[in-house]
Amino acid sequence: MNKTHTEGGRVVAICGGIGGAKLALGLSRQLGDQLTVIVNTGDDFEHLGLSVSPDLDTVLYTLGGRADSERGWGRAGETWAFMSAIAEVGGETWFALGDRDLAIHVERTRRLRAGESLSSIARDFAKRYGIQAEILPMSDDPVRTIVVTQDGELPFQRYFVERRCEPRVAMVRFAGVETAQPAPGVAAALSRRDLRAVVICPSNPYLSIDPVLAVPHLRDLIAGASGSVVAVSPIIGGKAVKGPTTKIMSELGRPLTSESIVRHYEGLISGIVIDTTDREDVAKLKVPCLVTETLMSSLSDRERLAEQVLAFADRCRGGSIGSPKRPQ
Amino acid sequence: MNKTHTEGGRVVAICGGIGGAKLALGLSRQLGDQLTVIVNTGDDFEHLGLSVSPDLDTVLYTLGGRADSERGWGRAGETWAFMSAIAEVGGETWFALGDRDLAIHVERTRRLRAGESLSSIARDFAKRYGIQAEILPMSDDPVRTIVVTQDGELPFQRYFVERRCEPRVAMVRFAGVETAQPAPGVAAALSRRDLRAVVICPSNPYLSIDPVLAVPHLRDLIAGASGSVVAVSPIIGGKAVKGPTTKIMSELGRPLTSESIVRHYEGLISGIVIDTTDREDVAKLKVPCLVTETLMSSLSDRERLAEQVLAFADRCRGGSIGSPKRPQ
Repeated sequence: MNKTHTEGGRVVAICGGIGGAKLALGLSRQLGDQLTVIVNTGDDFEHLGLSVSPDLDTVLYTLGGRADSERGWGRAGETWAFMSAIAEVGGETWFALGDRDLAIHVERTRRLRAGESLSSIARDFAKRYGIQAEILPMSDDPVRTIVVTQDGELPFQRYFVERRCEPRVAMVRFAGVETAQPAPGVAAALSRRDLRAVVICPSNPYLSIDPVLAVPHLRDLIAGASGSVVAVSPIIGGKAVKGPTTKIMSELGRPLTSESIVRHYEGLISGIVIDTTDREDVAKLKVPCLVTETLMSSLSDRERLAEQVLAFADRCRGGSIGSPKRPQ
Repeated sequence: MNKTHTEGGRVVAICGGIGGAKLALGLSRQLGDQLTVIVNTGDDFEHLGLSVSPDLDTVLYTLGGRADSERGWGRAGETWAFMSAIAEVGGETWFALGDRDLAIHVERTRRLRAGESLSSIARDFAKRYGIQAEILPMSDDPVRTIVVTQDGELPFQRYFVERRCEPRVAMVRFAGVETAQPAPGVAAALSRRDLRAVVICPSNPYLSIDPVLAVPHLRDLIAGASGSVVAVSPIIGGKAVKGPTTKIMSELGRPLTSESIVRHYEGLISGIVIDTTDREDVAKLKVPCLVTETLMSSLSDRERLAEQVLAFADRCRGGSIGSPKRPQ
């Protein structure tokens, strides 16, 4: 292990919402302002006329110490008076916006309409929440995740929240991604010559990470990054911790194994972190592997996993572990 | 007193916010679906990117049984989580929007942006709140009350809420009123041949009633209405019950008397209702006058005053009292 690699250097984390944000929080506790988090915006949508960015907000709330850690989404101490009042006037109620959560949507919507970019607003909100890390949406241009199901195409939130992931998934596509540009700061963060590592957080690869990778240039920038690229598998004991990952992988015909995750990120990652319950998969994995406990229940779990992931990334980079990107 | 005039026939009430809405509530309890309320929209403004209609909302909340009768504005059982969260992200906080109150602004803003008119939305909200009366904004076109003060021109809410009515008023003007059209239903309500009465509620004549009268055609339609036109003076014992009426009248050089109110509505009203504490003014008033207790503290006060106002309006119409509009 090369000691110089464990000290200093910027790290980029790529993540979606809940699961990813947990590791991003752990990384931010290790790295402070040396962390850039690039967040999926494929789940963004307009609801009740407001611009809602669920993954970006989860990251802001989580790193800003405002997240509801019990429920896993939204804000701590949330109240729901608005929702009961919106029902009275016939507003849509299938997607819940808490009274506190509303503030970020109202203020962002106002600033977007005034011509400010999503990334500029996110930077400002992060600063106001006292977050040291740089939080960036993958793109300022609208990219919308569309789930192609047996019931037709569904915008992500309709599939995820309104339909509770019930329709069978045939395909996922990202409307608008072809013409989207990486948000200002994203390419620069990935292109730094002193980049220590890129960490792909344990978010849903198909719904949360693929939209980021689909933004023009981003996959190449990640694959060509100076530091190592390590992914944390969202699979624990043959299933996903949260969300629709398990169901989607099975509907897309992907075995529920860390091997599937490695294949999914083939050519991109120089190492994978898998859970101890899946240690028998190690032999099948074609990239260097760290086996550890990846379930993050407590804050200390998040910090411990982040520390282990960074040390593993440093080892991958240092060449002390064989890597397809840097064959020995 | 002509008995036939006390039964049936539609009534139009013209009002602003709090004080006017109290009488409108009393009238609605007497009249049910035979009441049309035409509401000032000069106080409307955009706040945090949301279209806010304070007077219209006060009328909707009051007649819909949702108003906070203690505070005098906003909704009963209101909470303020949104306001504390908007402060965290740097949003403007000088105008308080409660968590429940927000719903009507968010949903109206969405529907306005989708192309629906303010009057259509107000009709729908009234229906959803179970209000039998017809609630109409004076106009679907933006009219904005501007208070010309020693500190320059101030949009109404900046003067009223942010500056707490402190700057000295030189003049009040209504931006956009020249090209505004009465909202659909307004002219029809005032033009009915079987109209029983028009009641000008005890709102601020300069800030809340004048914007309505300034909408092209409305003053003529009111003056030419089939029924009698009676105003309820907002003056009680030489001052106004609430709001900046007292201060504004004195700054505009108008004596704080019901006589000033009668002069203000000269040529328009066939009768005035004044408070018992001002009974000595009766001799000076040039229109028929009803002297009664006009302070509305309780719901039964509102109902009693409404009943008396309607009976008085019927007498004015029936010709049992001399009226400038119908000389005997």
